[in-house]
Amino acid sequence: MTPLVSIIMGSTSDLPVMEKAAQFLNDLRIPFEINALSAHRTPEAVEAFSKNAKEKGIKVIIAAAGMAAHLPGVIAASTTLPVIGVPIKSTLEGMDALLAIVQMPPGIPVATVGINGSLNAAILAVQMLALGDENIAERLSVYKDGLKRKIVKANEDLKEIKFEFKCN
Amino acid sequence: MTPLVSIIMGSTSDLPVMEKAAQFLNDLRIPFEINALSAHRTPEAVEAFSKNAKEKGIKVIIAAAGMAAHLPGVIAASTTLPVIGVPIKSTLEGMDALLAIVQMPPGIPVATVGINGSLNAAILAVQMLALGDENIAERLSVYKDGLKRKIVKANEDLKEIKFEFKCN
Amino acid sequence: MTPLVSIIMGSTSDLPVMEKAAQFLNDLRIPFEINALSAHRTPEAVEAFSKNAKEKGIKVIIAAAGMAAHLPGVIAASTTLPVIGVPIKSTLEGMDALLAIVQMPPGIPVATVGINGSLNAAILAVQMLALGDENIAERLSVYKDGLKRKIVKANEDLKEIKFEFKCN
Amino acid sequence: MTPLVSIIMGSTSDLPVMEKAAQFLNDLRIPFEINALSAHRTPEAVEAFSKNAKEKGIKVIIAAAGMAAHLPGVIAASTTLPVIGVPIKSTLEGMDALLAIVQMPPGIPVATVGINGSLNAAILAVQMLALGDENIAERLSVYKDGLKRKIVKANEDLKEIKFEFKCN
Amino acid sequence: MTPLVSIIMGSTSDLPVMEKAAQFLNDLRIPFEINALSAHRTPEAVEAFSKNAKEKGIKVIIAAAGMAAHLPGVIAASTTLPVIGVPIKSTLEGMDALLAIVQMPPGIPVATVGINGSLNAAILAVQMLALGDENIAERLSVYKDGLKRKIVKANEDLKEIKFEFKCN
Amino acid sequence: MTPLVSIIMGSTSDLPVMEKAAQFLNDLRIPFEINALSAHRTPEAVEAFSKNAKEKGIKVIIAAAGMAAHLPGVIAASTTLPVIGVPIKSTLEGMDALLAIVQMPPGIPVATVGINGSLNAAILAVQMLALGDENIAERLSVYKDGLKRKIVKANEDLKEIKFEFKCN
Amino acid sequence: MTPLVSIIMGSTSDLPVMEKAAQFLNDLRIPFEINALSAHRTPEAVEAFSKNAKEKGIKVIIAAAGMAAHLPGVIAASTTLPVIGVPIKSTLEGMDALLAIVQMPPGIPVATVGINGSLNAAILAVQMLALGDENIAERLSVYKDGLKRKIVKANEDLKEIKFEFKCN
Amino acid sequence: MTPLVSIIMGSTSDLPVMEKAAQFLNDLRIPFEINALSAHRTPEAVEAFSKNAKEKGIKVIIAAAGMAAHLPGVIAASTTLPVIGVPIKSTLEGMDALLAIVQMPPGIPVATVGINGSLNAAILAVQMLALGDENIAERLSVYKDGLKRKIVKANEDLKEIKFEFKCN
Repeated sequence: MTPLVSIIMGSTSDLPVMEKAAQFLNDLRIPFEINALSAHRTPEAVEAFSKNAKEKGIKVIIAAAGMAAHLPGVIAASTTLPVIGVPIKSTLEGMDALLAIVQMPPGIPVATVGINGSLNAAILAVQMLALGDENIAERLSVYKDGLKRKIVKANEDLKEIKFEFKCN
Repeated sequence: MTPLVSIIMGSTSDLPVMEKAAQFLNDLRIPFEINALSAHRTPEAVEAFSKNAKEKGIKVIIAAAGMAAHLPGVIAASTTLPVIGVPIKSTLEGMDALLAIVQMPPGIPVATVGINGSLNAAILAVQMLALGDENIAERLSVYKDGLKRKIVKANEDLKEIKFEFKCN
Repeated sequence: MTPLVSIIMGSTSDLPVMEKAAQFLNDLRIPFEINALSAHRTPEAVEAFSKNAKEKGIKVIIAAAGMAAHLPGVIAASTTLPVIGVPIKSTLEGMDALLAIVQMPPGIPVATVGINGSLNAAILAVQMLALGDENIAERLSVYKDGLKRKIVKANEDLKEIKFEFKCN
Repeated sequence: MTPLVSIIMGSTSDLPVMEKAAQFLNDLRIPFEINALSAHRTPEAVEAFSKNAKEKGIKVIIAAAGMAAHLPGVIAASTTLPVIGVPIKSTLEGMDALLAIVQMPPGIPVATVGINGSLNAAILAVQMLALGDENIAERLSVYKDGLKRKIVKANEDLKEIKFEFKCN
Repeated sequence: MTPLVSIIMGSTSDLPVMEKAAQFLNDLRIPFEINALSAHRTPEAVEAFSKNAKEKGIKVIIAAAGMAAHLPGVIAASTTLPVIGVPIKSTLEGMDALLAIVQMPPGIPVATVGINGSLNAAILAVQMLALGDENIAERLSVYKDGLKRKIVKANEDLKEIKFEFKCN
Repeated sequence: MTPLVSIIMGSTSDLPVMEKAAQFLNDLRIPFEINALSAHRTPEAVEAFSKNAKEKGIKVIIAAAGMAAHLPGVIAASTTLPVIGVPIKSTLEGMDALLAIVQMPPGIPVATVGINGSLNAAILAVQMLALGDENIAERLSVYKDGLKRKIVKANEDLKEIKFEFKCN
Repeated sequence: MTPLVSIIMGSTSDLPVMEKAAQFLNDLRIPFEINALSAHRTPEAVEAFSKNAKEKGIKVIIAAAGMAAHLPGVIAASTTLPVIGVPIKSTLEGMDALLAIVQMPPGIPVATVGINGSLNAAILAVQMLALGDENIAERLSVYKDGLKRKIVKANEDLKEIKFEFKCN
Repeated sequence: MTPLVSIIMGSTSDLPVMEKAAQFLNDLRIPFEINALSAHRTPEAVEAFSKNAKEKGIKVIIAAAGMAAHLPGVIAASTTLPVIGVPIKSTLEGMDALLAIVQMPPGIPVATVGINGSLNAAILAVQMLALGDENIAERLSVYKDGLKRKIVKANEDLKEIKFEFKCN
């Protein structure tokens, strides 16, 4: 099946963070692909990917990178598809990656999510796909209701707890 | 004409920054609406807006706010439409607004652009709309080519400059 | 007994931090309730809580959240009761939560304590209750004297220590 | 009339920021006093004030200071009244004052508002007073409704604007 | 023997950091005392200490504290003795303590050393004492020469290392 | 004359900052070229430049950019020439540009100078050229001696000043 | 008269900030000298100064510098006199200078005051001199009492103000 | 063989970080030396090294230091050789070392790499050497191609992974 979402990581070491995005897309039955491409070590491969993504049928790109994280912006420069950027925490608490992704100059936006926010990147991708696909929109609503039920349930469990406080 | 994009500002004082987004949507002939709604002062109006936006035909929401900028996240909590967040600089160089918008907890993403990045928010909104509308996609390509031409032209002008350096 | 203080957490994962607040209220015999409600996942529940809290007899609300911590501000938007905000450390050393709570726009204050400062939130709540209840005020004074005695005692213990320095 | 709120500034140069607090208390007809006392230059005066405030009938203290802003914490150390801290921006965008006020150690809370957030400090003080005075509570509700009306009105004005965009 | 240097900690939990200061003063045979006094929990004790320190024969005060670290500034407000401030790291990498100590307002300086820089605080204290005591000055010079010899020796050891690099 | 140094700016708006680099190269009679090329708006032009620079005879590249400053890293990815990065201050005091340039991942270095440090970039370029050209090395030494003389002269002027202090 | 305090600036452009230190020393009749010496442009002059300062009769050195402010630490490396460091604000709100001065490694302390805190540097220098000179100590006490009187007077003036609040 | 690159560390404790630089130079068969010299503890040795490095045949200096990292700047002040600075992370996530190295004043550049970026420092040194030595240039190209092949290979491995997602 043709992938609708393409997940690109700057390094395979980002995989443990990005698995949550893959898992979510899988859960919502969105076809996707996942690749490691470095803006700095394989620039031609990044450019080739960016220029062909739309033609291949990709609708949304999720790009994750750490440190001086150029990958999302570099991809966004060569496509008109929406690019979602995920700052990966590796140094400076991830602040370097966040700023290097979100502070794009006028003309080339990157839709940035929080540090290590791979799940939110996948949800955002599905929200975009849902704009033109009611079936996907329906699955999203079901997911969102599940989120609410989970916290309502957690709250009920919380009420069951007998606070046994230490006397000091 | 039914608006496809809704621009929401936390305060009318954000209008000078957000005009660039309105200008861009206007230039690309995307129908849009623009309103001021405060997450803190008019919470019911925000909730009503968020819940009805999809039904009204809105496809993408751009939400701008400064300081402890809750508006984008609060809207995102009550809709499955993609929400683009614009951190407005008013205190702490805009760092407070950036973090209050981008660092959303798992489950409720906000597609964040740079501080005062209203133009990029509008471009991103159009990129999302273009996923399901080839006509809009075409207009985006034209815009992107124009960007390139502008910088190529600027560069040619630069070469014309006779550097007349000061002798010190 | 009707609770006077309501502790709200954005997530049940905040419980280990917030237990100190519950413990303190328990020690001072202040009736309280504790719940998990997410500003983003259960917005209607948060709104319902906020609007009814005063009528139910709640006097002070303690709200804790991490990351783009909107919960305290969202509650404050729908009540005139004082809301105490506790920034929970989960990313960026807690700086994101601190700014997202304390930097509220004019009109809707949140009384913010330090990062993970749940004990101080509870003491502050009791200080507010004590304004109208001499009995509670008395218990606070006793607590404060205890604090002093503890550090005086620790200092005396310190003086007993024989510094056995390493020769290098 | 006996003041219920005492506004203390670390320096008379903080007056332009703190006037908004005074104005609000005046508008809501809350008797208050305003003084400049420096934690570092007049420590005995600060201590005398803190120890006597409760006995004099003060219910809430608002303390404002900039830089290494010790005043709110020093006052809080010598009273059981709630102390609201206002970080004043003078250096480092006010971050130094914010951290020096909000990051109080366990046992001595300061209810911190945003940088230069004097209006919010005054509203918070009134929220505390309202806990024991229905008349004040009523005035607060009226104020809060006014806030909403103001932004609703601003939004209506916004809709009147004819966007006259520049053609580029 | 009358102590010349007084080490004050905001909490006994700062002892592991401050032991290096005590060790250094001990090594250089400078009589000193060490106490825990909290600016917030035992303000009267701090004030009594500050006012009497000079009369008791203390020449230099080293004050260590974490978070919203008021202790050094509060002591400096009540004495004309030089006060050396040591920011203790407990939250925000120690940045809160650093700013709360170093950013003192005009009129009341605190001689601030680096985060957890207790050894440097002790050296600085001895440098001040050495201004009026050639014997102490001599011991300082000996210490400084030792520092140089240690790094020269480490460098010689370094040259002995056979780099056994991994082949990759 | 074939340029040895190529100055690339992300935008012509960086020219006022970068003129100091051009001026210095001019003063030291180093042939250079200056262009505006955007990593995001003209990615192919950047790639073409980077790949051909060495062949054209360029020895050192100076690349300046602001915000999420990708230009220096993107150029460095496609050449083995040394690339000097100049962070341009436009938002967040230039911290975003600094981190986006200096925090490059292992394998692709950028020699970063201070924020708006265009003069230092040019000096560094000349230091690199001087490695293989004694004539250039000689001009550098002359420049460095000039720097010293200037500050020695300034100091002498300083001594001439009659401090006319205000009596307060 | 032999100077007891030596003020060294990294650049003559720091003079407007450092004049307050000179003024204070002048007011307290402490003989001092003032020079510009750059750690980077005139390293030998800095070293010569540092090594000879004690012999010349200097008791305390005040060193001011901005950006990557090495001057205070470099001086401290070559003398056992106490060195007071003044971070000068020129970029990044002065945070770069603050960290480059205060975060000295173990063994070489710099007594750091706040950003642009030249007055406090001078007061601190006098506090050190006062350790061995009762006459200077007396002048310091007089100065400190003056500070108190000034704020007491300012407070009295404040009470005279008739708050004429705007009706809104 | 005469070393072309000199690696200087502020402390032998920086060795684990700097070994990657040594390893890389070894791999590319670049003769190098490695020493520990402290700007603060052995200033004369640093000065002697800096002044003689060029004459000894050194072409590039790599200087690593943490905290208030003065070593690279101090070396750069006494040589016209290019100096590469490596900020070592020990406190404040390495931000103090980064700013103390990169923010050099006009006239004395340091070519700064990322925090703990010792490998990039070594690559940068080789890029500089390659300007005048085609043989070294060739080895660099081979290394860069290897980098690409490694990530291409990792990507192929990634495609082999069977995602076995957990059902939740």
